[in-house]
Amino acid sequence: MITSPANEQVKRIRRLQERKERERTGLFFLEGIRIVAEAAERGEAFETLIVSPDRLQSDFAWKLVENLRRNGTPILEVSSLVFERLSQKEGPQGIAAVVHQRWMPLGAVSVENGKPWVALDSVADPGNLGTILRTLDAVGGAGVILLDQSTDPYDPSCVRASMGALFDLHLVRTSFEQFRDWIKRQTGVALIGTSGAAKQDYHDFPYPSRLVLLMGSERLGLQPYHLELCDEVVRIPMVGRSDSLNLAVATAVVLYEIFNQQRQKSLGVMP
Amino acid sequence: MITSPANEQVKRIRRLQERKERERTGLFFLEGIRIVAEAAERGEAFETLIVSPDRLQSDFAWKLVENLRRNGTPILEVSSLVFERLSQKEGPQGIAAVVHQRWMPLGAVSVENGKPWVALDSVADPGNLGTILRTLDAVGGAGVILLDQSTDPYDPSCVRASMGALFDLHLVRTSFEQFRDWIKRQTGVALIGTSGAAKQDYHDFPYPSRLVLLMGSERLGLQPYHLELCDEVVRIPMVGRSDSLNLAVATAVVLYEIFNQQRQKSLGVMP
Repeated sequence: MITSPANEQVKRIRRLQERKERERTGLFFLEGIRIVAEAAERGEAFETLIVSPDRLQSDFAWKLVENLRRNGTPILEVSSLVFERLSQKEGPQGIAAVVHQRWMPLGAVSVENGKPWVALDSVADPGNLGTILRTLDAVGGAGVILLDQSTDPYDPSCVRASMGALFDLHLVRTSFEQFRDWIKRQTGVALIGTSGAAKQDYHDFPYPSRLVLLMGSERLGLQPYHLELCDEVVRIPMVGRSDSLNLAVATAVVLYEIFNQQRQKSLGVMP
Repeated sequence: MITSPANEQVKRIRRLQERKERERTGLFFLEGIRIVAEAAERGEAFETLIVSPDRLQSDFAWKLVENLRRNGTPILEVSSLVFERLSQKEGPQGIAAVVHQRWMPLGAVSVENGKPWVALDSVADPGNLGTILRTLDAVGGAGVILLDQSTDPYDPSCVRASMGALFDLHLVRTSFEQFRDWIKRQTGVALIGTSGAAKQDYHDFPYPSRLVLLMGSERLGLQPYHLELCDEVVRIPMVGRSDSLNLAVATAVVLYEIFNQQRQKSLGVMP
């Protein structure tokens, strides 16, 4: 059992709190019984399981450790104190993992009926990104395409906010230029943007069944060069003094409209 | 000009970062040109305006300072260093204010046509609360009723996330018992709850024009004693592995459905 916070393995894992280190290694850190169980259940590739036996109380968690051990996952036992140093939670539960990141190349993306993708330009807040992943999973979406300087989906705040949806969705990162070339080559796939200046009410537009929803950054929204690329740009109406919604909220409002239309279509209510 | 961070006024303002101190004094702290301007524009009661002349660059901001000075607002000039100690932002702009909180008593609440209220049980995350305020303002809502152990809307994270909507909405805090007695006395006002176990799809329910939307806490959702009180409980459908949405997202999805129905009604599209 590792009892020193100065241990090299411990220092290496702590460094995964930094994006640079996550990108260099292709790894990320997650903690807590529920999220570790979900990662295991979804077949994510564990590099190391970290266990603090003094802290780990639940039978469920111990069974999880046993299953992972049997599957050949390397297990690092650490003292309660060392675990506290690794953890970013209050009252850490004594289980965490270092897991391999999983990225899909843009070329492998296929946009299917009723499984929307969300493309995000330069999303800055990892909590927003995690919340978008959580909502996209709830409406049966396929994945997100992160354009240009977007935050890292493997940031601890994003992992936390995604509530496991991270493991169900495809993640793609690319430049706007590559995305533009790619979307132009897709046939039968609509790119839908949102803008406060658009004429088309988001609630009155009949969404095609194969689509990518493009959302702008928190600060700037979509730029003219984004809007030009879109097949349709929709507006979410607002009556208060606010001139914009939180990014995760705006994305959810449009995604649920798309989802509701699909549900009505599948019931034969709409043509 | 105050140049010492140990100054009593500076220490007093810093203490407003703590909820206990905000509750004791009925004051809160806000910072940044945009939000101070919005508070001034909406006629919020300023206790003190804080200005760091070295930091304050914009003409717009200096005009704002001049207007507030002319209205008799006490102005505290502080050094760049002192301002940094007061600020919770990166790159602080040199303008902040101490403002009086504004609470509406439950007895003064009147639920009007097309102006929904949101009642929140024990909402924990101030960012979620701020995002809910921002969305509620966008759909023309009237205010929020915070039940039991809810977070403080005057928490800096909530003030920030609300993007000024805090100044447009009524804020009420009360116990569940008082809320229950109050809602029972309201005639023609529907209390609508949400639950994953409800049968009624949120999208198929015709929302009455006078309503209070009751949302549960992030961790627990609505409890049986909440659901019992509701006139209707609706469910937001989900198809992924997620069994819940982020609280601010769930609130937004239902609020926009209510808003869309109102918009269609006013166009005469729906009966």
